Amino acid sequence: MLHAKIKSDILRDLVDIVGTIVDEVKMNLSEDGIGLKAVDPAHVAMVDLKLSKEAFESFEADQMEIGINLNKIEQFLKLSSSGEIVTLEHVEDENRLVLEVDNITQKMPLLDTAGMTDPSVPQLDLPVNLIVKGKHLLKGVKASQNISDHIALSAGPDGFEIFSEEDEDMVRLSLSKDKLEELNANEEASSLFALDYFSSMIKSVSNDVPIKIDIGSDYPVVLQFAFAGDNGDVKFLLAPRIESS
Amino acid sequence: MLHAKIKSDILRDLVDIVGTIVDEVKMNLSEDGIGLKAVDPAHVAMVDLKLSKEAFESFEADQMEIGINLNKIEQFLKLSSSGEIVTLEHVEDENRLVLEVDNITQKMPLLDTAGMTDPSVPQLDLPVNLIVKGKHLLKGVKASQNISDHIALSAGPDGFEIFSEEDEDMVRLSLSKDKLEELNANEEASSLFALDYFSSMIKSVSNDVPIKIDIGSDYPVVLQFAFAGDNGDVKFLLAPRIESS
Amino acid sequence: MLHAKIKSDILRDLVDIVGTIVDEVKMNLSEDGIGLKAVDPAHVAMVDLKLSKEAFESFEADQMEIGINLNKIEQFLKLSSSGEIVTLEHVEDENRLVLEVDNITQKMPLLDTAGMTDPSVPQLDLPVNLIVKGKHLLKGVKASQNISDHIALSAGPDGFEIFSEEDEDMVRLSLSKDKLEELNANEEASSLFALDYFSSMIKSVSNDVPIKIDIGSDYPVVLQFAFAGDNGDVKFLLAPRIESS
Repeated sequence: MLHAKIKSDILRDLVDIVGTIVDEVKMNLSEDGIGLKAVDPAHVAMVDLKLSKEAFESFEADQMEIGINLNKIEQFLKLSSSGEIVTLEHVEDENRLVLEVDNITQKMPLLDTAGMTDPSVPQLDLPVNLIVKGKHLLKGVKASQNISDHIALSAGPDGFEIFSEEDEDMVRLSLSKDKLEELNANEEASSLFALDYFSSMIKSVSNDVPIKIDIGSDYPVVLQFAFAGDNGDVKFLLAPRIESS
Repeated sequence: MLHAKIKSDILRDLVDIVGTIVDEVKMNLSEDGIGLKAVDPAHVAMVDLKLSKEAFESFEADQMEIGINLNKIEQFLKLSSSGEIVTLEHVEDENRLVLEVDNITQKMPLLDTAGMTDPSVPQLDLPVNLIVKGKHLLKGVKASQNISDHIALSAGPDGFEIFSEEDEDMVRLSLSKDKLEELNANEEASSLFALDYFSSMIKSVSNDVPIKIDIGSDYPVVLQFAFAGDNGDVKFLLAPRIESS
Repeated sequence: MLHAKIKSDILRDLVDIVGTIVDEVKMNLSEDGIGLKAVDPAHVAMVDLKLSKEAFESFEADQMEIGINLNKIEQFLKLSSSGEIVTLEHVEDENRLVLEVDNITQKMPLLDTAGMTDPSVPQLDLPVNLIVKGKHLLKGVKASQNISDHIALSAGPDGFEIFSEEDEDMVRLSLSKDKLEELNANEEASSLFALDYFSSMIKSVSNDVPIKIDIGSDYPVVLQFAFAGDNGDVKFLLAPRIESS
């Protein structure tokens, strides 16, 4: 059973975030809200998202899994305006999800979740942790895209750097400690990532959202941020690209 | 003889409306204004448009036919700003149409109208008639485009529905009687149409324009609306797509 | 040695102007500012640009030549906002140009200028000279693009015309003497140009910039305008296309 009402903007944020990793996803429903974990087809990036029932206008659900095509939700949401309330309902005998907004009703078949496993999110103990505004990450990615298809994230006691180079071209965004919201670093850490993955992961963040970043040396990066007014929480993991020397 | 002045916006509306059906059209001029009828190349959709001389800043014409390339008029209009006055003149010895706006003069050859017949507009006596704001049609079409390449229009004593389905996906925009400007229906009527044709026909309507719709069961639909501040009148007919069962 | 600071908007204007002719260019630096001359690969159009040190926030340079890839500068400038100050520095031992804006540093290798000659700008004594606002040139080009891939510029004692024709289609923008900022013409002069070159050359001009135009009959046209608040000066030359008769 699922019967919920939610602002279209929050549902759109959820779809934008998860849609950077997968098109089809298994959502785990419980009476407390929804959760989902997904890995991209190449097993390079992972998303772990929670949206508590407080993010909804109303929320009632039994413990169950539903398989969702995010593209169909995204297209449905284009029919809604900001601030409108979307109703979600699971019609059990049809095995379809019914969405309603304004005068529009859309029904879509649920996907078979048999082949969709919950990926286990590795517990990483990364030595450097910092919090940075979304706008800096977005600008650093834009700068790197001028140069290369890789991006290095480096941080240490003095600050945080986003860095790319290719042949003799180089670009670097440097944020000293005072430009960061928070910095916990007793050592230097640096890892290299595929730029297309990293840019996908952050493209849904807003300029002013504080993003928590955990960095190691040649280790995955963990990005974490809130959405839906702190009723939602997203964690992204991205595997490093080990530099061939 | 044709010598007329018209606001660029009205001429642009005319071109937008007729351009959804044909690129080349025969305009019938008379001392009262202009009229044209055209059928799309596949003979699925028809437009019947009248623009009275009151829509013009000034209008003088003899009874005659001129063949017009609408794409050329559309490109000329991109040189004009909203509110500017366009002058239209037929230069008989050159058989060209001369358009002027601001400092610009454009001359274009008239098309041979010999092969352009006036299609006869069928008189249909359709059982259900209603008037709906343009915005609802636009939204219903947008919703259907997410799902299918067909669109069903249905109406009865309770209201009006725009409906599409494809496999297990379904989308429906329902407008109860009180959401309509007018509804005259003693029976249910429903017909299916090619979505690309229907969306072309309505793409020139504004959100707040009242559109008169006449519907039968497996019959053509008739859409009618005013433009140019009620000095212009458009009627579209679209043949139904009979559902194969 | 080069160490300069400049508003990003001025550097962007320079790149837009010169980028219509070439992607790679040799800049001549001196203690008074920078200058460059370039010919397009087909040797049809030429640009001669000067930017005095007064256009900069600060400027220090030795007499030297540097080879620049304009596309890389253009992409760097997309990382800056209007009004931000860009720092340019030549790192001699790396032979790279370093650009900085906000938190971002970009380094790019300088190009070998050995094969880049300074084209000699011909001294033309053209009989008709006029000054016209940029918006008229932009509109005339837009009008011509509807019709043809050539554009004729004609001027005489009565005014200035931009004209194109193709088969029976014709478009003309006529500016009588009172619509021009200035007109010095004792005779009629008219030349034909390739429209794609002419439209490239003027696409960086603003609506209100006065453009000085020198016209002869079947002679190159010279366009001249200021930028960077009169601290920059641009001269474009475009070879005529001689009409085959």
